[in-house]
Formats: sequence, structure tokens, C-alpha cells
Amino acid sequence: MATKQAFAVIAGVGPGTGAAIAKKFASLYSVVLLARSPASYENTAKEINEAGGTAIGFSVDVQDEASVKKAFDEAAQKFPDQSLAIAIYNVGGVFIRKPFLEQTVGDFKTGYEASVLGAFNFAQASLPYLLKTAKASHQHPPSLFFTGATGALKGSPYLQSFSPGKFAQRSLTMSLAKEFGPEGVHVSHLVVDGIIKTPKTAAWMKDAPEGSKIEPDAIAETYLALHKQPKTTWTWELDIRPFVEKW
Amino acid sequence: MATKQAFAVIAGVGPGTGAAIAKKFASLYSVVLLARSPASYENTAKEINEAGGTAIGFSVDVQDEASVKKAFDEAAQKFPDQSLAIAIYNVGGVFIRKPFLEQTVGDFKTGYEASVLGAFNFAQASLPYLLKTAKASHQHPPSLFFTGATGALKGSPYLQSFSPGKFAQRSLTMSLAKEFGPEGVHVSHLVVDGIIKTPKTAAWMKDAPEGSKIEPDAIAETYLALHKQPKTTWTWELDIRPFVEKW
Amino acid sequence: MATKQAFAVIAGVGPGTGAAIAKKFASLYSVVLLARSPASYENTAKEINEAGGTAIGFSVDVQDEASVKKAFDEAAQKFPDQSLAIAIYNVGGVFIRKPFLEQTVGDFKTGYEASVLGAFNFAQASLPYLLKTAKASHQHPPSLFFTGATGALKGSPYLQSFSPGKFAQRSLTMSLAKEFGPEGVHVSHLVVDGIIKTPKTAAWMKDAPEGSKIEPDAIAETYLALHKQPKTTWTWELDIRPFVEKW
Amino acid sequence: MATKQAFAVIAGVGPGTGAAIAKKFASLYSVVLLARSPASYENTAKEINEAGGTAIGFSVDVQDEASVKKAFDEAAQKFPDQSLAIAIYNVGGVFIRKPFLEQTVGDFKTGYEASVLGAFNFAQASLPYLLKTAKASHQHPPSLFFTGATGALKGSPYLQSFSPGKFAQRSLTMSLAKEFGPEGVHVSHLVVDGIIKTPKTAAWMKDAPEGSKIEPDAIAETYLALHKQPKTTWTWELDIRPFVEKW
Repeated sequence: MATKQAFAVIAGVGPGTGAAIAKKFASLYSVVLLARSPASYENTAKEINEAGGTAIGFSVDVQDEASVKKAFDEAAQKFPDQSLAIAIYNVGGVFIRKPFLEQTVGDFKTGYEASVLGAFNFAQASLPYLLKTAKASHQHPPSLFFTGATGALKGSPYLQSFSPGKFAQRSLTMSLAKEFGPEGVHVSHLVVDGIIKTPKTAAWMKDAPEGSKIEPDAIAETYLALHKQPKTTWTWELDIRPFVEKW
Repeated sequence: MATKQAFAVIAGVGPGTGAAIAKKFASLYSVVLLARSPASYENTAKEINEAGGTAIGFSVDVQDEASVKKAFDEAAQKFPDQSLAIAIYNVGGVFIRKPFLEQTVGDFKTGYEASVLGAFNFAQASLPYLLKTAKASHQHPPSLFFTGATGALKGSPYLQSFSPGKFAQRSLTMSLAKEFGPEGVHVSHLVVDGIIKTPKTAAWMKDAPEGSKIEPDAIAETYLALHKQPKTTWTWELDIRPFVEKW
Repeated sequence: MATKQAFAVIAGVGPGTGAAIAKKFASLYSVVLLARSPASYENTAKEINEAGGTAIGFSVDVQDEASVKKAFDEAAQKFPDQSLAIAIYNVGGVFIRKPFLEQTVGDFKTGYEASVLGAFNFAQASLPYLLKTAKASHQHPPSLFFTGATGALKGSPYLQSFSPGKFAQRSLTMSLAKEFGPEGVHVSHLVVDGIIKTPKTAAWMKDAPEGSKIEPDAIAETYLALHKQPKTTWTWELDIRPFVEKW
Repeated sequence: MATKQAFAVIAGVGPGTGAAIAKKFASLYSVVLLARSPASYENTAKEINEAGGTAIGFSVDVQDEASVKKAFDEAAQKFPDQSLAIAIYNVGGVFIRKPFLEQTVGDFKTGYEASVLGAFNFAQASLPYLLKTAKASHQHPPSLFFTGATGALKGSPYLQSFSPGKFAQRSLTMSLAKEFGPEGVHVSHLVVDGIIKTPKTAAWMKDAPEGSKIEPDAIAETYLALHKQPKTTWTWELDIRPFVEKW
């Protein structure tokens, strides 16, 4: 593959959605993988590089403002002739499900910090670069995408340490879309509703009909389709779920 | 182009979104254009046929159950070896905007019937064919898409003869998605929010920044992206608006 | 009881919510009961009159514009010194639940006409009187309330002839609230979600915990509380459901 | 006034809504006022006590779990023969409005923590008492109410440090309502949309029509009406806004 003219940054690149998104965008861009530990991104980076793409990873704590900013700055130095085409926040957060009165303040903070404080830091660090890209001429408008969950749309018993962070992240994306859309940055919120097909979930739902788990590569295809939307025709929000999902 | 293996039906094919959708899907499928009068579909059909695609048109009154059913039956006879791949209801309805107490029952019925009675008839006529397609093996899951509007999500002064029909159509699509998703039919509701770039709107918003009108071809691209989603990874609803739109 | 200074009109006064609302407002106002047949309102009217209140009934077809208008005009003549304090549209419509492909156009029209064409006619007929009341000085702002249902907020399989009308009615109330609020008319949409305790439902849910059915008198109390809100502090929408209801 | 049989706890008792709610509920219950500093509750407590009611105040930092818990425990000791009838979280949080890229992590945390971490702590501390009340026999079901804002329903430019917390708080109340409703605790979310009439806002909107600011006493009346709903007929959410408010 030829040298890329732009780079993508993806935070949260475990073996499911994040890795699939990274591989998908590697056909267009250099990709920068952010995760808490190298173990989460090493395999994906290797796979992309071996397939002729360009991938590097950084260990980042998304809840630490400086850590996120540093990653973007280092990525920009690593690819000095490339602009930031897309930044994707795919950090799922910790899924805590237990009776409310057994939840601790620590549970609550953990849930909200991964979902929304990290998203805040990610937006703060990426937007200066995305705005710069917006001023130049590019094939696709610079994009800032966030992976959401069903918990972003409705609360449920036992989910008080999970769902508020997802609601909050959704609010953040709406405000960002309204503020930075007119500046040429495409902000989207993709609500993924269902079990994603990963090594971890392989043993789940054995008796469900084929196609009952969400396919990471198909999620990535949808992210790519949104990224390719011209600025006349942007989607802020969509939902993604398998054909058998009740909602 | 080679003979197609499936056909698409698009209702509401004026010179904006409908025509763009028809041309987009003509690269994959034979297309059947439905409109009240031939004047609405003739040019688009001719353009597609001249470009090597296959298009036919039928004059249909979507508010007349029998008229819609007849069109689907005739299309199926016209393409006896092809299955129905996608049916798109893009009938905008009449946009009535005036003080509520000046609106007549006729205004109300007109608005309501175009948006939702027509959609009901269209779903009734297309679903038997789409269910048949779902049972066979096809590249993309059979799809039933509806074009919605901002009026589907919020009511506004003066729009009591327009917005209720759009709300109702949205409800219809949600119930259909939940009922026919598990049967393998992908039902989506695409909320288009903004002025669409057509000959009719050419003179509007002269002073707005470039890209302030929604590009029909880009809408069509988004319809195509949804249609290509595998059944593991379906979107029911998304919004589409230009980068400067306030919402 | 003393002569009332204002009157209330309630459409849909079967033995559940409608009757309870009528009796509740009879302590403040003369009440006018509208129903398709006298059998629906006679008992309630009698009960109110025997308790010292003032109630009259009219047979009205809410889907017939002229019929609704005539009822309001006759009510105004009947109480020439009284202004219209509140108009409540409590017509539930026909609950149709069956597979979509077994639903007929007739089913669909029946569902939407009761829910939303009737509501449109009711708003058209009542608003001229309510606007007149708004210009005078009254204890409580004139009110126009609509009873909604869960089907107004989400679609479900088999409910395509029921839910669209409820969505549409909700849209209608939102547009009316925004248009006539500034004119001093309080428009509200009350979403009732659950089984209402009536003679008809007496045999249902025998094993459910006490309090699992919604109490009509308590619904009426909530309508009254909203009606008493001053115009500084209006509620457009609220939900009502029993403590055990899942949603 | 006679000794009360139950007590109410209200957090956030500045001179607007909180004080009005406290005074309203003082007619039914002993009231416990929580605020960061005594200056916020002293006047209201004095006013209630001089009018024959019973009020005490505690200085509480709602973001500190132990501080909130201690206040409930001390209140229970102060009124040993009384059960907790209602707990109202009326802490508005800091309204931060500035360009996103000028917002700091500190701004974001401040907004988030006041709106939702405080609400979490408040729910954790009050629910054990409310569940105990639910098991006994009381005139009105024990209630846990939260004051929300427009920012709970939509995001807007410049509000990324305010609106996410409000979304999150709304989610929290929905999950609590679903989890504790069946246990007999009435959880509600009251969305207040508009300028509230307080000493601080006296000089604002001088030219607006009378009634353009929300009346604290009328808000309090609505809280009281919800609290009086029997458990057959509960409202989870309603909006409150002045008649001229655009939304």
C-alpha cells in the first residue's frame, strides 16, 4: 500500500469492534491505536502492518487528560505530513450490573469516567487537529465518532453505575455535533445494541439463530459509510442491532 | 450492464431524493418507479435505461390499496425471475403550514394520508414479496425503507396537518421493524432534516455557505449503505442533515 | 352546590377514566359529556346531577367535524354565562392487535381516526372558546388535555393500526401546545400506561399485587392538578402507570 | 401545628425552588434542609419554624457520600418516631456555558458531580429509609424526586460541562424508578425548563410578558401533587415551563 495522506485515531481497540474498525480504516489511513495496555493493541497493529498498512499503538489512560493529549501530539509528530481524518472513541467502559444498594461510589465513578470523562478528554485532544483538517481540502470531512450503547437511551434496574455515563456521553456528542458541525467536523453517536461477536462471547447464546450476534466487521463498515458522508448529508445518530434483537 | 437478479421498487420519484435513489440502486437492481403521474418518473426511467440499466414506471395512487398492490404484482410479472430486493417509500406528502384554526379537515387528511396511509399500503403490498426474498439466499437482506422528516420527531406551530402523519409513519416503521426484523426483513426510517438540493430549491438560500443543502446523491448513498448491512448489524433509524443545520 | 361560572367538556366518557374525570371536574364546573351513544354518558350525568352538580350529555361522532362543533356550540348556548374552562379528549380509540398482514385498511383507518382525526376535530371546535376564556380573567388557565397511551411513545409488533394514531395525537398536542401556549391555553398530553381499573377489567390480573391497575379517580386527580397549574408553570406531558408496571 | 408523623428531606434549598418546596411540604411533614452552607437554609428554616412548622438544616456536601449519609442518619435520630416520607434532590449544579475548547476537566467534573454524583449519593442514603417507609402503612407512598432541566433532554453548543450531568441524572432516575417502583417507592424526574422567579433573576427579562418566569410556589405545588399520587397511578416524568417558553 502507498503512504497514507491522513491518519485515524481509535481509542478502545480490544478484540471486537475496535480492532475491526482499525483494520477497516487502515485501508484508507495510517491508524493509531490507543488502549490502556499494549496487550490490547499489539496484535491488531501487527496484523495491519503485516497486511501492508501502517499502525502504531500508544498506551493511554483516557481518564487522564494529559495522557490523551500526549497520544495525539505524538501521533501528529509520527505522521508529520498527515492530517487527522477521524478520531473514534470506542471505549466501552465497565459494565456493572447489580442491585443499586450494593453499588458503591467507586462503581459509579468507574462507570461514568470510562464512558464520559474519557470521551470528554478524547474530544478535547482531537478537536484541535480535526478543526485544522476541516480547514484544508480533504476527500472526506474530518470525523469524531463515539460508540454508544442501549444504555444511552434507557435506564434499567441494576444499571445505575453504567447507564448514566452512556446517557452523558450521548449528550456530549449532541452538543459537540451542534457546536462543531458548522466548523466542518462530523460528530456521530453510534448506538450498538446487542451482543458483539468476539472470542469472549463465542460461548454465549449457542442456541440462538445464526446472525444473532453483531458482526464487528459490519459495525466497522457502518462507521466507514458515515465517515464517507459529505458535509451536506451527515448523520448524527444511528442504532445498530442484530435482526432478532428485541428493543 | 448484465441482467439483474432482483428488483427494487421506489415510490415517490420526483426530481430530488427519489430520482437519486433510483439511479443509485439501478447499479444493483432493476428498478420500478412509482408516482402519481408518468411525468414524475419518465425522465428518470429514461436516464437509467439509456445508461444501460433497467427501469420501468407505474402510475400509482399510494392512498389506494388496490393501486399499490397492482403495481407490485405487475412488477413481479415484469421481472419473473427476479426477487424484490428493496422497497423504498419516499412519498413526502403535502407540506401544509398555516395557523391551526385555518387548517381544514381536508388539509389534515391530505397530510396524514400521504405520509402514513400510503406507507401502510406500501408495506402491505411489499412485505409478502420481501418475506419471500428473505427465505431465499441473497447478497443483501431484503429491505423496506421509509423517508421521514424532522416533523417525525417534534411538533411545531402551524404544522398540525403535516407533523402528525410523520410521527405516525415513524411509529409504523418501528412496529414493522420489530415484527419483520426476526423474519429477515430490514426495516429502516431515515429522517431527512433540511432543504434538499433540487431544481425547485435552486433559488433558495443563495447566501448560505456551500453545502447547506442536502445532496440527493449523498442521501442515496446512505440508503445504499444501510441496504448493504448484513442482518447481524442493522440500523433502524438515522438522521441526515447538512453541516450547518440547527436542530 | 352553587351555579358554576364555567363549564368543562369531556369527550369519551365510558365507565373508566372519562367518568372519573367528569365527576372530579363537576366539583368545579358544569360538565358536558360527549360520547357516541347516550348509554355511555347517561349514568355519569345522572350521578353528577344527583350529587348536586350539573351535567349534560351530547351524542357526538368525533370523526365528524360538524358533529363536534355542534356539541360545543350547543354547550355554550346551554351555559350562556359560563366560559369554557377545560376540554378533555379522552377517546381511546379501538385497540387493534393482530399480525400486520392480517390488518386491513379499514383497521388502520379506524385506529387513526379515533385517535387523531377526532382529536383534530375536538381541538378545532374547542380552541375558539378556550381562546376567548384566555382573554378573560379566570381562576385557572383554560386547558385542552388529551389522553395518550404507551403506544404514543413506542411501536410494537401487531400494533400498526393502533400505535401510529397515538404517535400522531402526541405530535398534534405538541404543536398545539407550542402554538396556543403563548395565547394562554394550556395544552397537555397525559400518557396512561397500564390496565385501568374498570368493570370491564375487573376479572383481569386476579393474581397481581394490589394496586397493579390504574385507579381512574387518581388519574382524574392528576388531570385536576395539571389544570390548576398557573401559566407560569405548565406541564405539557407526563406519564402515569402503576407501581409494578414494566416499561 | 400538630407534631408531624413523617419527615421530608430536601437537598438544594436556595431562595428559589428549594425554599418553596420546603415550605410547601412543611404543611405535611417535618422538613430537613440540606445545603452546602447554613446561609442557604437558615432563613427558610426560620420562616417555617416561625409559621408553626418544624424545620432543621444540615450542612452537607452532596458529593461526599459520608456527608449525605450522616445527614439522613441524624435526621432519623432527630425525628425518631417519624418515617421518611419524601426525599427531594434539587441541587442544580453549576451552570457552565462556554466554548468547548475553553472548558477544563475541572469544569466538566464540577458539572457532572453536582448533577449526578450528588444524586447518586442522595439516592443511596435515602432509599434504605424510603423502603422502610414503604413497608409500613402511610397516607402517601414514599417518594424520591429529582429536579431536572432542559439540558437533560437535549445537548447544545457550549453546554458540554452541564448537559451530560443532567442526562446522566435522568438516566439514574429512570433506573431507580424501575428498580424501586415495585418496592413501593415513587421515583420522579421533574424537568424544569425556563427562568425561575427568584431574587437573583428579578432584573432579568424586564420586558417579557407577565408570567414568563416560573413561579417557585407553583413548582412546589406540582411536586406535592405528584407526591400525593397513589401507587396505582404514578408519574415518573413531567416537564414544567412558562406559557411563553419556546421548546
